[in-house]
Amino acid sequence: MTRTQPIGIDRVIAPQSIALIGATEDYAKFGGRFLHHIVDHGYKGRIFPINPRRESVLGLTCYPSIMDLPEAPDLALVAVPAPKLAAMIEECGKAGVGVCVVVTAKMAEFGAEGAALEAEIVAIAKRYTMRLVGPNCMGFILPSINLALSSTPTLRYSGPFRHGGVSLISQSGALMGSLYVQSHDHGVGLAGMVSIGNQADLELCDFLEGFIADPATKVICLYIEGVKSPARLRTLALRARAAGKTLLAVKAGRTDAGSTLAHSHTSSLAGSFSAFETLCRETSIQVMDDPDSMILVAGILDRAPAMGAGGIGVVCSSGGGGAVLADRMDLAGLPVASYAEVTRARMDADFQRPHQNNPLDLGAHTGDLEFGIFERGIHAVHDDPGVALLTYVLTPQPLMPQTAQALIDVWKRQEKPVLMVLNTSRFAEDLRQMFLAAGVPVVARIDDALRVMSTAIALRDAQTGIREAATERPAGLVATDAPRSGFLTEPEVKTLLSGYGVAVPHATPCATPDEAVKAADAIGYPVVLKGVADGVVHKSDLGLVQVGLDSADAVRAAFATIAGAIANAAPGTAVRIDVQQMIGAGTELIVGVTNEPGFGPQLVVGAGGLHVELLKDVTQASAPVTPLEAEAMLRRLRIWPLLEGVRGQAPADLASLCQAISRISWLAADLGDRLVDLEVNPLRATPQGAYALDGRATLD
Amino acid sequence: MTRTQPIGIDRVIAPQSIALIGATEDYAKFGGRFLHHIVDHGYKGRIFPINPRRESVLGLTCYPSIMDLPEAPDLALVAVPAPKLAAMIEECGKAGVGVCVVVTAKMAEFGAEGAALEAEIVAIAKRYTMRLVGPNCMGFILPSINLALSSTPTLRYSGPFRHGGVSLISQSGALMGSLYVQSHDHGVGLAGMVSIGNQADLELCDFLEGFIADPATKVICLYIEGVKSPARLRTLALRARAAGKTLLAVKAGRTDAGSTLAHSHTSSLAGSFSAFETLCRETSIQVMDDPDSMILVAGILDRAPAMGAGGIGVVCSSGGGGAVLADRMDLAGLPVASYAEVTRARMDADFQRPHQNNPLDLGAHTGDLEFGIFERGIHAVHDDPGVALLTYVLTPQPLMPQTAQALIDVWKRQEKPVLMVLNTSRFAEDLRQMFLAAGVPVVARIDDALRVMSTAIALRDAQTGIREAATERPAGLVATDAPRSGFLTEPEVKTLLSGYGVAVPHATPCATPDEAVKAADAIGYPVVLKGVADGVVHKSDLGLVQVGLDSADAVRAAFATIAGAIANAAPGTAVRIDVQQMIGAGTELIVGVTNEPGFGPQLVVGAGGLHVELLKDVTQASAPVTPLEAEAMLRRLRIWPLLEGVRGQAPADLASLCQAISRISWLAADLGDRLVDLEVNPLRATPQGAYALDGRATLD
Repeated sequence: MTRTQPIGIDRVIAPQSIALIGATEDYAKFGGRFLHHIVDHGYKGRIFPINPRRESVLGLTCYPSIMDLPEAPDLALVAVPAPKLAAMIEECGKAGVGVCVVVTAKMAEFGAEGAALEAEIVAIAKRYTMRLVGPNCMGFILPSINLALSSTPTLRYSGPFRHGGVSLISQSGALMGSLYVQSHDHGVGLAGMVSIGNQADLELCDFLEGFIADPATKVICLYIEGVKSPARLRTLALRARAAGKTLLAVKAGRTDAGSTLAHSHTSSLAGSFSAFETLCRETSIQVMDDPDSMILVAGILDRAPAMGAGGIGVVCSSGGGGAVLADRMDLAGLPVASYAEVTRARMDADFQRPHQNNPLDLGAHTGDLEFGIFERGIHAVHDDPGVALLTYVLTPQPLMPQTAQALIDVWKRQEKPVLMVLNTSRFAEDLRQMFLAAGVPVVARIDDALRVMSTAIALRDAQTGIREAATERPAGLVATDAPRSGFLTEPEVKTLLSGYGVAVPHATPCATPDEAVKAADAIGYPVVLKGVADGVVHKSDLGLVQVGLDSADAVRAAFATIAGAIANAAPGTAVRIDVQQMIGAGTELIVGVTNEPGFGPQLVVGAGGLHVELLKDVTQASAPVTPLEAEAMLRRLRIWPLLEGVRGQAPADLASLCQAISRISWLAADLGDRLVDLEVNPLRATPQGAYALDGRATLD
Repeated sequence: MTRTQPIGIDRVIAPQSIALIGATEDYAKFGGRFLHHIVDHGYKGRIFPINPRRESVLGLTCYPSIMDLPEAPDLALVAVPAPKLAAMIEECGKAGVGVCVVVTAKMAEFGAEGAALEAEIVAIAKRYTMRLVGPNCMGFILPSINLALSSTPTLRYSGPFRHGGVSLISQSGALMGSLYVQSHDHGVGLAGMVSIGNQADLELCDFLEGFIADPATKVICLYIEGVKSPARLRTLALRARAAGKTLLAVKAGRTDAGSTLAHSHTSSLAGSFSAFETLCRETSIQVMDDPDSMILVAGILDRAPAMGAGGIGVVCSSGGGGAVLADRMDLAGLPVASYAEVTRARMDADFQRPHQNNPLDLGAHTGDLEFGIFERGIHAVHDDPGVALLTYVLTPQPLMPQTAQALIDVWKRQEKPVLMVLNTSRFAEDLRQMFLAAGVPVVARIDDALRVMSTAIALRDAQTGIREAATERPAGLVATDAPRSGFLTEPEVKTLLSGYGVAVPHATPCATPDEAVKAADAIGYPVVLKGVADGVVHKSDLGLVQVGLDSADAVRAAFATIAGAIANAAPGTAVRIDVQQMIGAGTELIVGVTNEPGFGPQLVVGAGGLHVELLKDVTQASAPVTPLEAEAMLRRLRIWPLLEGVRGQAPADLASLCQAISRISWLAADLGDRLVDLEVNPLRATPQGAYALDGRATLD
């Protein structure tokens, strides 16, 4: 019965038959909860309970072992204690099971012994061409096939599934249970949720591939602790985008504090968060800060029409609530629409011009209160040509049910996204249920309203940052011959940079004061003197750099000072001092590349010199980049106005600057896995060109 | 019956008798809702319904008019239409009413006609020594005397009051209704809530004074659109602090967008938000971004013990939830506690050392699951000497009720604040009610958990920023003679600065190139030349500044250039060019003062020169400041490390710098109301002293 072909991921997330090892009627037991949930939620596939001590459970025929089934099931659920696990996986393999969902915990996440057992079951499964989910997972919840394959008690509480287009792939099982019940309470329609545990075999990207192909899925949420295969995630994210599916992600381990826990939690290495964020920006994965809000936002994106061009229109029943939302929208950089004259003309019947604000306070109407005023106000803002999304802030107000109906009606037109901010607690629960029944997006808090609006806008505007294809190699650019390993000196790095077409100041290495003066005479005053010593990084701190030397005497004096400093910093080193051309004033940048395992070379561009640590004004991209992409990076910096020229200063030579950044990124890319890090600091951007004034690199 | 003494604010927020004009039994009517709410909530004072068409309502004797009452009531509720308002206020005055709560809207917030009526009722009330609340308010909710004096339908929904120590003063009536029901649902115990409307007579500070004196009130929440009397707010905030009461505030109109609405909403001028924030920092008012969270946090502060020294300890039932919280705490700068060895030793029984993290994931225990593991883990973290606040993130988990009971037990010890993060939606509503019944603080979202933790820490650490007393005038500092009005030239400003002991470069005004060379010879090369022209602000942009001139020839050339530029910028102006001492390199700061109406002179210190707009690295204080306060301001800047000296650069002369900032602030304070603005940019902080290199000022 052993399989010759592995089961496909499409079948893993839509199995037609399942075996439940340890099935029982007792809801207090693990195997009981699984069986009850499956039966209660009306799974239509074939169910094979396995229990040697029973003839039948819940009316289903029971089998003594997995070897005794009438067919090889697509999926077997395995939750046996660790000592019995390997034998059970072996039996499943023999029985021709397609995929084992392994709930058993205390595996690789718990130390060497667990890791060995985990490796063992992977090896066994491989022998039988069987796939594994987990271990240390909490199963699946698959509303699109009515399969509740999880022990989370939230399944019993929540009643029938809410069907929809949201799927979740979660590295945390408990979080899947928590997000399941929240989705149910907040009107989020689900296609599928999977918890993937330790990803010993099937991993996040496998499931992502499955949900991208799944016709029921429109929005995919990822809860990630560590990315196993960044390159594949990149490819799949672009595929999802091409297929018109939206990806949202929360990644734990953003900071060191989180990393510690994520690591011990599922033994996955939390990759550098900024490399992850860069990947997401380049593939239009929306990074969110909070799992609860991710599932809420996903549910809203699933059923709202896409946001078009324009800003946000806000209507409120209380000036106070509207004012606070407007303040926070402004702080978050969310665009408030300005009304067109046609809208103002419509409003004139009910609102004086000074009260025709955005937010529109319905309470500020003229004349006596009647419902038509509210309805007309809502319609006027919704229909405004500059309004791309309508938000209504509902506090206790007159005519609440009628107002709710008016909002449901504009929502049903499905012309623009409509969002309700409704935090009147249980007081307005009936109204909230009205909205949920009609599918109208509702959030309780301004925090979430901001997240919905900013995600909708980010998705609409994501085009520019996306990198669909690999960067094309510049014509004629030849990859460098691999230089030596270790920490390269500044002249070595500059030679590399020169070879890639990055301008560096003319420099003449000198061993004596006389040679230095001769070199300075040839280059032309003023000059710079720099001491070169193996292994010395912060040259300025040690007095190895002397600038603005405008005479032979100054060169001699500087030579003596630097020679002394070298003797101090690196005793016994032969004195080598470079005499360099002095480059004119400009804006100093840092251009660095690190090699993030799995993510490839990561290019960082930012404010350079002393400002690196002070301003932390940096942006990141996957290397290599084109000059155009380099310019996009520069435009994201706070110091961008300095490059454009402010206060009468000449602008930098942008073409040279972007070319230099692109070429540095190519150098890093060509160095490939040998690159540990590369840093040009400063790259001075002057009106006459961009010059690498200093550089360092470490190669393996 | 007319009063001779005004009613005290203590009696306004605790009236012993109330008259209800327009009282009826019909809940659909305004006067009916008021009466029902008052009766339902068990007000124990004397109630006088006024209605000429009834003998009695709800069993209470009805009176035909306010003039017919058997006594002068403390309070009368007035909600008559605008045309009848003035007459009704007159009647109340004649009847000896202490305070009228005026609900009638469309007053000053609605245009000139309303403003005139508002002024009229204020004048009438004054004649009768009667106070007014509103107009355009929504009444009071005063649980401490069981008085529900509001028409908000949330009062009927919510049932009996939840008594406690939280009070609210709100400029928005609808927001009071919304926050009332939220407080009820989230376990916030209330002393009193007042909506103050247009503040035509009694204003926010009057009520603040009342609640500071109110023994039932421990935490006071303010919802502010515009501050009428900043100086009084400052005094009262310090008084509240001395009385051990906590103040929280949300202010609408933080940005221009919000300001528009706040203005049209209650016709109050939204003062500059940064001046408000400065006042709050100097008096320990905690500024919050969201009214919903303000009431939640207030409820928690009301019943939690104060936070002591140490960090935050987090325990979670799911590694995922804990990792996300830890990430966001780190981003928010919240301190995570490190466990003491004694704590680790206690944990050793159940957790391997690599799993003894903060957050502690209870699921990562060794051995078989039993409740003692969870209980011991919670106690170990709670008792850790470095843990000052315990947060538990509860997701669906085993043994939920027992875990909840263990948490309730540690909370009951009242040794440290304990906070539950419980977002399992309605699934865990029974657990949430368990916590609320026991008074344990619960929030549903990480957003609010962060607000609770950061507010508790800010309150604990607020000591340093508080300014209890006015700054003492430096000995011997004589206030300046008032200079002329208008825009002062750079030399005029420097003369003022010099008079206050602020160092400025030596400068010699010259009219010809020969004079300039002579002056440069006397000062010593290199020198700076600066053109002086009335009304010219951005001198560098126009080429009026030439620096680093190291010879007579260079001075002559620069003179010609600047003379040409003056002729361009201000044709017909007499040429005046200052030859100045060139000040050594240093860090450039901006020191500016604006005069914010009501708030007094506001001192702004920040990164200067080109960086002003780029970095927006500024901090603000009320002028004048002492040199010590100036240093505290500098330490809040991102560029502070530059002043301390980084990368081998010499530190700035901090004593001179702080002295200069203090003296500039005194100059501004002495100029008083005549000051429009004053700006020194740059103030160059060098190792040899701080020099005002440029300055401007505008005086009335």
